[in-house]
Amino acid sequence: MNHRFERVAIVGAGLVGAGWAIVFARAGQSVSIYDAQYAARASVLDWIADSLSEMERCGLIRDVPGIMARITVAGSLEDAVGEADYIQESVFERVDVKREISHAIGAAMRADAIVGSSSSGIPASEFTSNVAKRERFIVAHPVNPPHLIPLVEIVPAPWTDPSIAPMLRDFMESAGQKPIVLSREIAGFVLNRLQGALLNEAWALFDAGIATAADIDRSVSDGLGMRWSFMGPFETIDLNAPGGVTDYAERLGDLYHSIAMDRQFPARWSPDLVARVAAERRQALPLEDLSGRCGWRDKMLMALTAHRTTSHEGDNAKPDIT
Amino acid sequence: MNHRFERVAIVGAGLVGAGWAIVFARAGQSVSIYDAQYAARASVLDWIADSLSEMERCGLIRDVPGIMARITVAGSLEDAVGEADYIQESVFERVDVKREISHAIGAAMRADAIVGSSSSGIPASEFTSNVAKRERFIVAHPVNPPHLIPLVEIVPAPWTDPSIAPMLRDFMESAGQKPIVLSREIAGFVLNRLQGALLNEAWALFDAGIATAADIDRSVSDGLGMRWSFMGPFETIDLNAPGGVTDYAERLGDLYHSIAMDRQFPARWSPDLVARVAAERRQALPLEDLSGRCGWRDKMLMALTAHRTTSHEGDNAKPDIT
Repeated sequence: MNHRFERVAIVGAGLVGAGWAIVFARAGQSVSIYDAQYAARASVLDWIADSLSEMERCGLIRDVPGIMARITVAGSLEDAVGEADYIQESVFERVDVKREISHAIGAAMRADAIVGSSSSGIPASEFTSNVAKRERFIVAHPVNPPHLIPLVEIVPAPWTDPSIAPMLRDFMESAGQKPIVLSREIAGFVLNRLQGALLNEAWALFDAGIATAADIDRSVSDGLGMRWSFMGPFETIDLNAPGGVTDYAERLGDLYHSIAMDRQFPARWSPDLVARVAAERRQALPLEDLSGRCGWRDKMLMALTAHRTTSHEGDNAKPDIT
Repeated sequence: MNHRFERVAIVGAGLVGAGWAIVFARAGQSVSIYDAQYAARASVLDWIADSLSEMERCGLIRDVPGIMARITVAGSLEDAVGEADYIQESVFERVDVKREISHAIGAAMRADAIVGSSSSGIPASEFTSNVAKRERFIVAHPVNPPHLIPLVEIVPAPWTDPSIAPMLRDFMESAGQKPIVLSREIAGFVLNRLQGALLNEAWALFDAGIATAADIDRSVSDGLGMRWSFMGPFETIDLNAPGGVTDYAERLGDLYHSIAMDRQFPARWSPDLVARVAAERRQALPLEDLSGRCGWRDKMLMALTAHRTTSHEGDNAKPDIT
């Protein structure tokens, strides 16, 4: 039995919620967006309209007025979620904040609606245990910004109805996102655990004076990240030895294990260490230019997305190698 | 006093050496390539010509005959390196093999030549300690394939002449590569330490049954890797909190520390674990299709490089945000 995802509510109109509104309205859903703060409700449509114009200029979408017409701003939580088939919760990432809004959503939603939380690392069990209809709650974690990076992590709580994860995966796929499903909860999920592992090594290398933050960044942006923008870490090493991943592990497993042994007492990101990286970053980019640079990042992502649409089409045309 | 890098010798005509030949000949250097195996010497020019044709089709280069005209295959090590200003050693990655070839190069080279090793993780001090002119040896580690991924890690040994790293950085930059310089030796250098940290977490997540290898790969190829293809890990988090990296570390430092604490007893990549990932990979891509998929990867990298040339030009045009 399949769930309908026609009416979508978004709770929380920050950058993540607004990005989700674009995702769902672009896919044809009707979207109702709500935020407890009046100022956020007042400005979100302008932000969405600006983003859609940028995306149109990059050739990513066409019918901006049609997309805008599917988005409304609700005056109350009840108005937003009362009739929704799917609710995407995108409030501030703190357990008490998530818990409070989940209670309110649970009280106002239909019994058969589904609630996905944008939580980037806190499992749903930590904020839905006493919530009404808690078996309808799940994590659907996007990457920032969700309308430009397609990955979504779907993470069920122990009490989530088991039929929800596969239905939500299908829906996200049909909406143009790239979902993955975790078998169970784990702090940080997959994406931020991978990012955290790499970051911890980056901090340690900087702390030891091995390289500048700029050079460490370059090793990814002009090295590792190029392959990783179209294939994952397992496929990358699978293609990096004539006998595939087994061959690679035989050649390099010992080296990688010895590297890991250097880091068996994980250090905190100490305020002093963070301050030294921040000093280098603020030299390269003053704080007042940060939001401008975020605009640059989003334009780079739009251009990359337009590029991927072309080159990945070529990939799909060769089913023998996929 | 500046070193001339006009005549380049490449020792080892495998995929890495052949890629380097393209890098230097493309930049205008005259390149002499040598391999102890006759079969490698016999086939390397065909491989280079094929790769150059692909690159021309992608709009990455123009004058294929001009580039080919700058590459010769030498019949002996002495012929290749005797008059070279710069020697790029690219033989098989094993300490004894690197040591033997370094001895031979040290005996045959000019006293003022520079030798860069393509070693991907073994520091130069482990294979140059008793070599003649050892102060002229350094690591210049590329990413596979070097003509399509520009990063180069420059890593001096304790006895490397301190003037060499900055001169080699300038030369690599002028040849179109993206060099970084490490202050001192460390196993795995920067790039493979970062890759290894992420891989170790990926293996652990797979081992715990949290997600399939395909879904773990997707979290990078449709998530983390998109941003990382044009900005590094520090810039990524710097742009992911309103107050920059300091703000980000305050919000998420505890989460990342707790994730690291889960992995404080680093596991080896056990043969059983590797076999389970290999089984999933071989289902997705039979071993006989591996080399075809490498061709796909290289085409994807060429298309990405062509794309980056355009979008990064746009970046340079806005000096206020760089």
